[in-house]
This record gives sequence, C-alpha cells and structure tokens, in this order.
Amino acid sequence: MTPSLDDRPFWRAAFQAVREHSRQLSASLSAEDQALQSMPEASPTKWHLAHTTWFFETLVLQVHLPGYRPLDARWAALFNSYYESLGPRHPRPQRGLLSRPSLDEVWAYRRRVDDAVLRFITEAGEAAWRAGADTLLLGLHHEQQHQELLLTDILHAFSLNPLRPAVSAPPAGLGDGTEAADLRWLALDGQAVQVGHDGAGFGFDNERPRHTHWLAPCQLASRLVNCAEFAEFIADGGYRRPQLWLSDGWAEVQVRGWQAPAYWLARAADGSDADGFEQFTLHGVQTLAPAAPVCHLSGYEAAAYAAWAGARLPTEFEWEFAAEQHAGALQQLQGEVWQWTASAYAPYPGFRPLPGPAAEYNGKFMINQLVLRGSSLATPPGHARTSYRNFFPPAARWQFSGLRLARDAADNGQPGGAPR
Amino acid sequence: MTPSLDDRPFWRAAFQAVREHSRQLSASLSAEDQALQSMPEASPTKWHLAHTTWFFETLVLQVHLPGYRPLDARWAALFNSYYESLGPRHPRPQRGLLSRPSLDEVWAYRRRVDDAVLRFITEAGEAAWRAGADTLLLGLHHEQQHQELLLTDILHAFSLNPLRPAVSAPPAGLGDGTEAADLRWLALDGQAVQVGHDGAGFGFDNERPRHTHWLAPCQLASRLVNCAEFAEFIADGGYRRPQLWLSDGWAEVQVRGWQAPAYWLARAADGSDADGFEQFTLHGVQTLAPAAPVCHLSGYEAAAYAAWAGARLPTEFEWEFAAEQHAGALQQLQGEVWQWTASAYAPYPGFRPLPGPAAEYNGKFMINQLVLRGSSLATPPGHARTSYRNFFPPAARWQFSGLRLARDAADNGQPGGAPR
Amino acid sequence: MTPSLDDRPFWRAAFQAVREHSRQLSASLSAEDQALQSMPEASPTKWHLAHTTWFFETLVLQVHLPGYRPLDARWAALFNSYYESLGPRHPRPQRGLLSRPSLDEVWAYRRRVDDAVLRFITEAGEAAWRAGADTLLLGLHHEQQHQELLLTDILHAFSLNPLRPAVSAPPAGLGDGTEAADLRWLALDGQAVQVGHDGAGFGFDNERPRHTHWLAPCQLASRLVNCAEFAEFIADGGYRRPQLWLSDGWAEVQVRGWQAPAYWLARAADGSDADGFEQFTLHGVQTLAPAAPVCHLSGYEAAAYAAWAGARLPTEFEWEFAAEQHAGALQQLQGEVWQWTASAYAPYPGFRPLPGPAAEYNGKFMINQLVLRGSSLATPPGHARTSYRNFFPPAARWQFSGLRLARDAADNGQPGGAPR
Amino acid sequence: MTPSLDDRPFWRAAFQAVREHSRQLSASLSAEDQALQSMPEASPTKWHLAHTTWFFETLVLQVHLPGYRPLDARWAALFNSYYESLGPRHPRPQRGLLSRPSLDEVWAYRRRVDDAVLRFITEAGEAAWRAGADTLLLGLHHEQQHQELLLTDILHAFSLNPLRPAVSAPPAGLGDGTEAADLRWLALDGQAVQVGHDGAGFGFDNERPRHTHWLAPCQLASRLVNCAEFAEFIADGGYRRPQLWLSDGWAEVQVRGWQAPAYWLARAADGSDADGFEQFTLHGVQTLAPAAPVCHLSGYEAAAYAAWAGARLPTEFEWEFAAEQHAGALQQLQGEVWQWTASAYAPYPGFRPLPGPAAEYNGKFMINQLVLRGSSLATPPGHARTSYRNFFPPAARWQFSGLRLARDAADNGQPGGAPR
Repeated sequence: MTPSLDDRPFWRAAFQAVREHSRQLSASLSAEDQALQSMPEASPTKWHLAHTTWFFETLVLQVHLPGYRPLDARWAALFNSYYESLGPRHPRPQRGLLSRPSLDEVWAYRRRVDDAVLRFITEAGEAAWRAGADTLLLGLHHEQQHQELLLTDILHAFSLNPLRPAVSAPPAGLGDGTEAADLRWLALDGQAVQVGHDGAGFGFDNERPRHTHWLAPCQLASRLVNCAEFAEFIADGGYRRPQLWLSDGWAEVQVRGWQAPAYWLARAADGSDADGFEQFTLHGVQTLAPAAPVCHLSGYEAAAYAAWAGARLPTEFEWEFAAEQHAGALQQLQGEVWQWTASAYAPYPGFRPLPGPAAEYNGKFMINQLVLRGSSLATPPGHARTSYRNFFPPAARWQFSGLRLARDAADNGQPGGAPR
Repeated sequence: MTPSLDDRPFWRAAFQAVREHSRQLSASLSAEDQALQSMPEASPTKWHLAHTTWFFETLVLQVHLPGYRPLDARWAALFNSYYESLGPRHPRPQRGLLSRPSLDEVWAYRRRVDDAVLRFITEAGEAAWRAGADTLLLGLHHEQQHQELLLTDILHAFSLNPLRPAVSAPPAGLGDGTEAADLRWLALDGQAVQVGHDGAGFGFDNERPRHTHWLAPCQLASRLVNCAEFAEFIADGGYRRPQLWLSDGWAEVQVRGWQAPAYWLARAADGSDADGFEQFTLHGVQTLAPAAPVCHLSGYEAAAYAAWAGARLPTEFEWEFAAEQHAGALQQLQGEVWQWTASAYAPYPGFRPLPGPAAEYNGKFMINQLVLRGSSLATPPGHARTSYRNFFPPAARWQFSGLRLARDAADNGQPGGAPR
Repeated sequence: MTPSLDDRPFWRAAFQAVREHSRQLSASLSAEDQALQSMPEASPTKWHLAHTTWFFETLVLQVHLPGYRPLDARWAALFNSYYESLGPRHPRPQRGLLSRPSLDEVWAYRRRVDDAVLRFITEAGEAAWRAGADTLLLGLHHEQQHQELLLTDILHAFSLNPLRPAVSAPPAGLGDGTEAADLRWLALDGQAVQVGHDGAGFGFDNERPRHTHWLAPCQLASRLVNCAEFAEFIADGGYRRPQLWLSDGWAEVQVRGWQAPAYWLARAADGSDADGFEQFTLHGVQTLAPAAPVCHLSGYEAAAYAAWAGARLPTEFEWEFAAEQHAGALQQLQGEVWQWTASAYAPYPGFRPLPGPAAEYNGKFMINQLVLRGSSLATPPGHARTSYRNFFPPAARWQFSGLRLARDAADNGQPGGAPR
Repeated sequence: MTPSLDDRPFWRAAFQAVREHSRQLSASLSAEDQALQSMPEASPTKWHLAHTTWFFETLVLQVHLPGYRPLDARWAALFNSYYESLGPRHPRPQRGLLSRPSLDEVWAYRRRVDDAVLRFITEAGEAAWRAGADTLLLGLHHEQQHQELLLTDILHAFSLNPLRPAVSAPPAGLGDGTEAADLRWLALDGQAVQVGHDGAGFGFDNERPRHTHWLAPCQLASRLVNCAEFAEFIADGGYRRPQLWLSDGWAEVQVRGWQAPAYWLARAADGSDADGFEQFTLHGVQTLAPAAPVCHLSGYEAAAYAAWAGARLPTEFEWEFAAEQHAGALQQLQGEVWQWTASAYAPYPGFRPLPGPAAEYNGKFMINQLVLRGSSLATPPGHARTSYRNFFPPAARWQFSGLRLARDAADNGQPGGAPR
C-alpha cells in the first residue's frame, strides 16, 4: 500500500532511500569506470547519476521550488536525455567524452539537488506540494529505472575489457547447484480479461488505462527457460537453422556472428559449444549454472528458442493476466530476468501521455520495440509490479532478459509436459 | 464466390489472366527499364517476372508434375527470393546486375512454365490436382502481389532519373478537380468482435484463424486524409516539430531530410512548400490534386499527421471490423491507397504457417513492421479483400500508402467533425 | 610520327577509327548489359559511350562550331563525369539507373555528334581549327581511355553474375602453354636522367614537363611476375602474413577477405588454393596460364608480393628510363598488364594543368593514388607510350594490373637470378 | 652533439628527463580526462603513458635484461599499438574502454619499468648494453613522439566537451599582437642535392639513407601562412570553390562540412565567417592572433590555400635542403606548426627497416600519407631536426599542422613578393 501524499516524512525517507541506493550501486566503481560508454545505447554511470539529478532539478525544482537556480546552465544540455521540449542535448554517443564535470562535481551536484528536494518536501506549501508531488514521485521511479540501466551498462562496458573486471563480489551461495523445477503448463481459457494498472499506487502512463482484452485460450510455462535447456538448443544447431528464426533475427545472427547468449564465453577457441561455456556477470567470470534462467538473450533468440521448443513467446496480456490471477501456479515471475513477450510495444486503448515535458517519457518510443514483463535481479527493490511494461528493440541483448514459454491451447494435446 | 477446385477450366482461365496481366503491366517498359534496381528493397521488373515464374516451377511443377525438369538449374538461386529451405540465393541488392538471363530469355522461361502449368491444370490426375491446386492458387495471389510491387519498384527507379520517365500515359480525366467529401466519424462501441479470414475463398495464412478480438470504443474517419490536408500539416511545420513524431520517426526525418511525402516535388528551389508541390507518378510529373488521398507516406509520417490532427492511426482490427460491418459508412476503403494502421504485424492467436517451403511466406516477417489495410490503385483487380493484411516497415515510403484517421471514443466530446 | 594539324583528312580518319573502335568493343553486349553499373567506381558501357560523346559536344562543338546546339540540355548533367566547372552532375553511383536515354538514343546521339565533329574537321576555318584541334585530339585520347574502362567495368559487372557471361569469345591459341622466360635483372647506375613526355606527338598534361630526375642505382626485372609465381606466394601464406603488407593493405585483406587476385576462382569450396584456381576473364572462365602475367592485383598485393620476393616495386622513373633507354633488355613493357609502381601520383616539377575546363582532367586527382606504367591487353592500339602515367588508388583490383619487380643496387650481391 | 654510448650517466639522465616530461604533460589532467578516446585515431593519455612503457618493457627489458618478468602478461595485448609480430592487440577504437588498469596502476607500472631500465643502463655488461642501447634510444624518441600525440589527442577530446576545458593555463604574453613579418621568396637553383639524415646523432630509419635528389628550380616562402591570410581565403569563398581543391579534398569538404580550420569557432550562429572566429586551444578558447601561423589544417586545406594563393606546397626535399643550407633566410622552420608538404610518404632509395619488431616502426605506413616537415609548439624539446619526416593522411586535422608556400621558378617573373 502506498502512503498518501500527506505523509511527507514517508516521501522524505523514500527519496533519501532511492538516492542512497544509487550511491551504493556505484560505490565499487572508480571515477574512470564511471565515465565509460561502450555503445551509443549505454550511458556512463556518472551520466546516470547526473541525469537522474537533472530530472529532479528540471521538472521539480525549477518548476515548483521558487527561487531555485540550477548549478550550471550549461549542464542542462549535457544531462537531458531525450526531451526535445527541454532544449538541445549533448549527442548521446558522446556521453563517454564528458570527463568534465568530474565525478566529484557530479556528487556535489547530487548533494545540492538532494538538499533542495528535501527542502521542497518538507517546506512546500500545500498547493505547491500537490502540484509537484506527482513529478517527484515519477522522478523516484525514473531513478530506479536508471539504477538497473547503470548495472546493465557497466556490465557491457566491463565485458569489453579483457581483464574482465567485476562490479561486485559474488554473494555467498551464488550458483549453488539447485536443480531445475519441473516445467508445468498453466492453461488459460478464452475470455475477456482486464489488463493494465488498476490505479492503486504508482504506475507509468504506458500501463494505463486498465482495459478489456480478449484472451485466446493458451498455456503458460510455470517457470523460465534455463541455461541447460538453452545449451540444448545450441547443441541442436539452433544458431545455424534459419527456419527457427524471424527473418530480421536471422540477419542479426549472420551479421553479429551470434553463437550463444551475450556474455556466454565459449571455452573452445573457435567459439563453439564443444567445451561448454562460462558466463561473464556482475561478479566477473562465473561457472554457468544449468538450472539458472538463461539471460542476456535478444528477443530474436527468445523467439527462435520458443520455435525450436514447439512453443511461442507469451503475449504481454497472457503474462499479466496469469501473473495477476494465477501467481501461485507460476514461478520466477519477478526478480530473475525480464521476460520477452510477443507483444509489440504500443499504446493501450485510450492511452494519454503525461502532461508537460513528461509526455515524452514513454509514448514516443511505442514503435519497433517488444514488451518485456516481470523484473530482474537488477531491478531495485520495490520497483516491480504485475502491470509493468519494460520495452527494448528485439535485437537488444545487454539487458537481463530471458524467456518463459507459451503455447496455443490447440497444442494442448501434444504429448508430455516438457517443451519438446 | 470462388469456384470449386473441380472447375478446372475456370482455373486455367484464371491462371492465364493473371499471367497476362503481368505482361500488360510491363509492356510499356524497355528491356533496360526492366533491369533497374534502385534500392535493395526493390527488384527489377524482369526479376519479378522471373521470380513469380520460379515460384510455379519450384513449388508446383517440380513437386506435382512428374518428369518436369527446370529450364536451367542455376536460375533457382537467381530467382529464389527469401526461401532458406529452397537453397542459396543470389544477393538481393544485386538483382539489378543480372543482365543475363536477358528479358527475352525470361519471357521464354515464362512461356515454358505457362505451358507446363496449363498442362498440369488440364491433365493432372485427381489426386495430383488436389495435392497441387492450393499451391497453384497461392502462386496466383503471389504473382498479384508482385504485380503491385513491380509498379512501386519501377516508380521508385524512375523517380531517380532526372528525365522523369512515365510508366504509362495518364488516363483520361485524371486529376479532375473533384472536391473532397466531408469527413465524418463512424462510432464503434466497445465489444467483442470477430476478425480474420472467414474461410470463404482464398486467404493468406496470416489472415487466419478468424478469432475474437475485444474492440475498445472508438471512431473512424469516413474517408482518407487528402493532399490538401497534408499540405496544411507541412505548412504548419509538421516536419519540424519533434513533439508530433515517434522517436524513430523523428530520427528518420533528420537523417533523410524529409520535408514532404515521397515523390512530392517542391516547386521552390530550397525544397520548401513555399511555392507548392507537384507529384511524380506512374504517369510522370502531375499537378497535385487537393482532394486526392495523400500517398507515399511512411508510417511515421502517417502517425505524425494523426498526432497533429488530434487523432491516431486505427488498429487493423478497428479497420477490419468497420470495413466488414459498416462499409456503407466509409469511403475509400479499397483501391485508393494502402492505409497504415497502428498495429504491429504479428501472428493471430492460433496462427499456423503453411506446410512445406511456403511456411516462410509470411510468418518470419512478423516483426518490425506495421500492418496496412485496404488496397491501392496499383492492386490488381480481384486481389483485395477486407481481411487482407499488407505489411511494411514504418519507414517505407515507396508503396502507395496513405492514412485514415481514428480516435478514442473519449475524444467524442471534442467539438466538430473536422479532425482538428 | 604524328601528322601535322594541317593534315585534316588524317584527323578525320583518326576520329572515325576511334569512334568505330568503341562500337566494336560494345557490339557483343546487349542493351541490358550496357546499362550495368556494379560499383560506384565503374560505369555502364552506355554511359561510357555517351560521356565520350558529351566531351566532344561540350568542349569542341559548343565552343568551336558556331551554331551548334546540344541534342538535349538535360543530358549535360547526365554525362558530365567530374567537371565541376561545367555544372551539376548526376550522382556517380546512380549511373546504372539511367535506363533512359536508351541505348538506341545514345547511338543516335553519337551519330549526331559524329556528323558535327566531322563537319568541324572538314569545314572549320583555319583559326577555328587551330583553336579547337588540341581539344579534339584530347577527346580522342579521352575516348581511348574510356575504351579500356568500358572493358574493365563490364568485366567487373559480369564477374558478379553467377552465369559468368563472356564479353567475347576467346581468341584462337589463348592460354597456350608457353613457358615463362627466365627472369634477368637489368642494372641501372645512379645518374641524372630525363623523364617525362618529350614533346613529340600527343601527351597528357600529367606527363609534362620533361625534367631531370636523379636515379638511384637499382635493378629491374626483365619480365613481369607470372601466375605460377604468384601462386607460390599464396601457397607460402602470403595472404596470411601481415609482415609482408603495408598497414593499409593488411587492413584491406582483413576487411575484404582477399585470398587471391581478383577474378581468381578457387576450385576448393573454402576459397583456399588447395585445388588451384581458374580465372574469370573477358572470355569467361578460363584455365589459369602459369606463364601469363598475374593480373587484377591491387597495389597492396603487388607490394606484398614484392616484399615476399625480397624485392620492391619500381619507381615510375626507374620504369620510364629503363623503358626508354633499355627497351631491348626488358620484356612485356606494353600490352600485357599495367604495372604498379611505388610512385605516388604527383605533379611533375613545373606541371601546368590544361587551360579551361580540361584543367580538371588530371591535376585534381594527384593524391591518394599510385602510378601504373606500361599498358594492358585492353589498351586500345596506339594509345600506349613510354611516358604514359596511369593511376589508381592502391586498393583497386578491377583494372588489368600486375607487377614487375625492382630492387636496390645494394641487393645486387644476392645469389641467383630468381626473385627469391 | 650526441654523447657516445659510453657515457651511461648521460643516458640515465636523458631517460629520466624524457619520462619526467610525460609526467609533467599529464599532471593537469584528472584520471577521467586521461581515459578519454575521442576517435579511433586518438588514444587516451593513460594509454600513451602505458604504451611507451610497454615499448621499453618489451623491446629492451624482456630482450636485454636477464630475468625481467613483465608485470602482467595480459597487459601486452592492451598496450601493443600495431606490432603484428608482437602478438594480438586490443582493438584500437576500444582503448577508451580500459578503465582498468587504473591510472594509478599505470603509474606503478611506469615506476617499475623505470627502475628496471635504470638498472639496465647502470648495471648491464658491455655486450648487453651495446646490444640494447639502440633500442633504448629509439624508445626515448618514441616516447617523445607520443608526448606530442598526448597533447593533440586530449585537445581533440576536450574540443568535443561543450564546457571547453583547458589543458593548461595560457602562458604570459600569449597572443600578443605582434605583426606578421614580410613574406619573401627564397630562390633555389636546379641542382643535385643531398637529403636525408647525415648520420650524426639519432635519426629514424625513414630518414635514411642520405641520398642524392635532383632539385628543380623553385622558390620557398620565408615564413608560414598566418591566420589573417587564411581568413582572407575563407572570405574569398575558399571553402566553396571546388576548382581550388584536390578531388578527394573537395569530397571531404562536402561530407565533413568544413568551413574553417579545425578548432576555429565561428562567432556567427550559422558557422560562417561573418563575425570572425575564436580558436579552441590547449589553453581553452582564445582570440585568434592574426599574425600567428594558421594551425589544424588538413593537407587538403593546405593545398587548396596554396592553389588560391597561386602557389603550391613545397616538396619535402625543397624544404629540407633549404632548411639545411639557407636556414638564415627562412623563419618559423621549427617549433610553430608542422608544415604539410606535397610529398607522399615513401621509402628513400635504399631504405632498410630496423631489424626485429621495430621493422614495423615506420615502413608499413608508407602509403596514403603526406610528409610534414619542421616541428610544432607541442614537439618536445630536443626532438626536432631538419631531416625529420612526420606523416599523416591528408585529411588529418587534429595535429598542429599548417603550411609554408612554394612555387616553381618559372613563376619567378610574377609581380610582387606577396603570394597573390
């Protein structure tokens, strides 16, 4: 249950907790680490720390805190991500060239903005608080999104360093050889269902409005596809059989030379699976755990695996309805890996973007992307929910992304509970 | 009503009619014209003529006509489009380099295959006929699809020739200044509807199965957006206002320098709309007819126009249901321009690809594309139907593509019948 | 000996002969063949035919024949190659899209211009003739250059057609197994020598002025490197040993996947030399003749071979001096393959470009290219001379280009007459 | 005069001085600054510091200091620049991704190698010293080359940061409005001259052997082209007139949008010269000093300016002979800007690469580059000499590069001493 806006001490503590979490995530990284940008789609840690701060400064403080002046007018262009309505932006592929402002300066910036936001929470009059609190709340969830990106981005950067640095030490017990649970199929009848955010607590605009969707009869796998299963796909020539792939996916396989999920490190010199794999992770190179969910898949690989398994990806509505109504029958819904769906990222019927600059938050990206559902090991505590819609282009592999199988009800009669 | 498979004389005539239509479409083009490939996505006229023939040869004659031998074994690779299961293919971007086989040789090839197909239709035993007729029928619709592509592809090639050649003389009465009909809004209630091919007559696999879809309450424009309206969008800075555009669309505008629909020719030297536009068409350069549907839009431009007009693109299901149930209330459903929808091209619930090599016909393209509905002036007679799903990437502009507006029912209360 | 300008019947016949030779070269090619452009650096046969005609029309007729009017004002932009001072140009990579004007129209254009030029030669007053004759002469040599390019360009286009068409039937006796001559070394002393065109007969501006050059003592191979020798280089890992290559050349090997000269067709499926090679030629696929000069090398491959052989490429001045003074000691100077030199294409001391638009003929290309000397089997009769400077970027392979070895005099003491 | 190899204390001090200079150059830069790589051709400061250290470690210590073991075997691949014979290399464009090893670790590496080198200098037996001293000496000059690159590379990186950081504070008196000296022409007669390193002191292999060159009669400008003169070229449409440019240079102007030298900052919003320019320098944004040598030109711009001025670039031999024999008549030979020459970078007659891995030092780059002569304000003390051959591709602009005019003797009669 989310506290009311009247509970300002709660929001004060919530703000501090979110901001502190960013500090903890980056604490093990040097200033040099935090400046790395390894591809245009990824951003330096330092930039994430500054951009999330710019968001509060620009959308909360400059609008709702009288007399607030930004620290440096030139920084707005540096730390604006993609808001066309908020002026020019430093080119995205050049974020890694910003050795200045320094990490120390960015931390001073964070402290300055933190102080001002806390002052706003504590001291704002009722009207000002009511006017700004929604955007403040949006800013918290925004920073949580960047906390996950901070980890996926540094992981990508570190993966390109032959010294294979670790972001953090492995937790005790990691990779313990737990066995995979049996895969069962949850059957869903054809029916009109309600999907979308139900209005209780925070939700992004792209989760609204809650609306009716007609569900075709189908079945959902009780758990995620794991590494051992995906290794079978590889061993069976999965990356060499065009018939399993979407056309654009097969083109990626050819051009990129994909032979395994991202960050899987073949022990064989020729990159084949002959001698098995290790995996590059936040904790450095680790043994591949057979029962762990397969991770760092593109949507194309997820769809090809599903085709090979005689199944398909679930739609985002199948996933949401099952997660909401049949959570008990499904394992690994949250906190493991984001789960690719077959659903293109599109507006819900009646979708309305947020007012003001935040209108650009979600709507303009509703093309050429697939929805992912659930959440991952890197999703900050409290950020996940059943109606959450994550989205990435189908070729993206640097997120913590895997898959759960689904199949049409008509396939019901096929023998056995195993996916093939 | 489609005749039964028992009516072989009907199918004989149908085959001849389709094949003859390809001849007529290409009759005005020289051998040099027919060899042009102006971009990887487009193919030479000659290649279309040969590829459609290869389709009959490979999927009908070689499978179902005993003793049939292909004319030249090397041609299979030249004229296979994208069927991975049917062996290697000549690189798509190099189709324009095939001066050999010559156009004359391709026509000899067509005649040879025509003779064999007619022999098959006439002489095949009942079992052989039953086994092959479906693929034969598919081949006819396949050739019709290429008939439209033949025109869009040569139009694109000719658009790059400063001499601005015409494919054909303008028909009498073209561009007569008919006035635009009033735009009215057809209201649809929220309800469960049936969509997809109903089983009567031919349909592609991607139109099946007919299934239930929940329609949210909405409104559909009674007619297409016309050139005069689109010129208003341009005059109002439509191509310079990022807020109107999907993010990927705005990137295309920047990179490609779009300032107007494809083939609109600004009279002003700077490419602006200051002095109005002419349009390059199949009949050469023509005056822009204000009341004619705007054409050669990308899906991005269609969506940006809709945003500017305070509306949105219809979903493919809104379009299909309205076209099926309320055809009387809607104008310009067929035969003008393909109509971009907001729907990503995806499999219907329970979708099953065709058996054999034809499995690659549609399913593997169900990613990164939008569905277009209706048909265009270039669609061959008899090819259009209400459940038809055309599809192209949102950046494609060389098709005969325009748009019809839609809006959520909640917008109902907005004043007036005009889109803005 | 070149006749004087007063001998107008001679020039009339010369003009007709050069123009007729273009006709003969293209006579075996269909209109479709003649429209092919397989890369930006190559042009369609039809374009060569039209461009050389445009050259006469623009630089001779429009300037020196009173009252001459061009056939179509729009064609100037289509057939201007690179003369910035003569107005806008159709984009070079799009020459293959010009199905119009048709080949027939281009031939009508040629006849019209031929008539006018012949009229100019015959009827011009003395002053007009004196004023225009130099450019007319330049136009003849210009057309001869394009005659060779016509062949190299169509050969490249045909090489990309899996049907492997031939431009012409092989002459009788081709590839007869003549043995390679012994390779001897011609020693040249250090000395001041004269190089450059001596003023007798026609020469391009880039061959002038004749000037002094200091020749370091060196040795020149008596004959060209042949296919058998180059095959040894391949067998010895020549394409896999970076130490043999210039840095930019090694980068090309990696990016392009070079494993043998252009148009060498490995018999082995993996492209290796395990089963030897055939060669794609103007006469289709032919057996590789061991004693024939190796052809279709880039300058990088020529330099790498020379390094492997313990030698180097000659400078253009070593080549010219030896060819002029010691022709008897050298074989294969002309008419086999162009011979890469170590000399960057640069202006001679005192170089002056031609006046007027022809200033752009040579000078502006004097960067990023190497000089090739001699001439090839595709060079038209009468076009070669000792002072001739051909030039291409070092990565170019589609010309008829091979190499002759040279070495510093200090290497004299090395044992034997063989290059390694 | 260079001390003999017997004077080990001298070499000890020289080594320490060179190494200390690298420290001083980088002292003002943060660890974040030192990690920046702004383009593939440029390297991070930290990488320069490590690579120069790797050079000593690999070519001196591992070969000549018994028992020396490298600090970390994995670093060899990280800090090898382009030596194919010394094993695999980290991809050049990814040097900026090496946040590890940290700057601190690199400094520890430097100290460890410094200690070992000093031990080698001091304690090596006579034979070992004789064997290794030449490579040690090469390492010192190698580090000096990287000292200049360190500055040009960080300047390029800083130029892309909108905050426009300065590498160092401007020295007192910078930009004082000294007037430009008169430009006079030094006439050189046609003659055989000696060029190349004369054997006294250190020289790179590419400067050897000293050899005879025939000099054509010519004239050399007494001073460099200055900013005021280059601004005239701009004002006269220099960047808009293709006739002034080499063909490849004009293509760069179009593609890159060049309108002024690199780092010139137009005051006018449209980038034009309407309101004059400032200049981004090692000391941040500075007023443009009219009499200062124009800097940060590509070879193309240098050649275009020369053409505009009715002159040409000097050959490297004209430059060297004049600098050696007529130094008194020429100003600004050293220490201002590198001076583009018309000479392609090529081996001297009799050139022999260094033995061993150092063979790759210079020879393999002798293609597609122009020679620059002199030295710049960023060249370390003691590194310049008359026979020095610097080289860059003609499109490079991030070096401290300008030009001195030359002209053929035949131009002698032209009126006036000014270049146009």
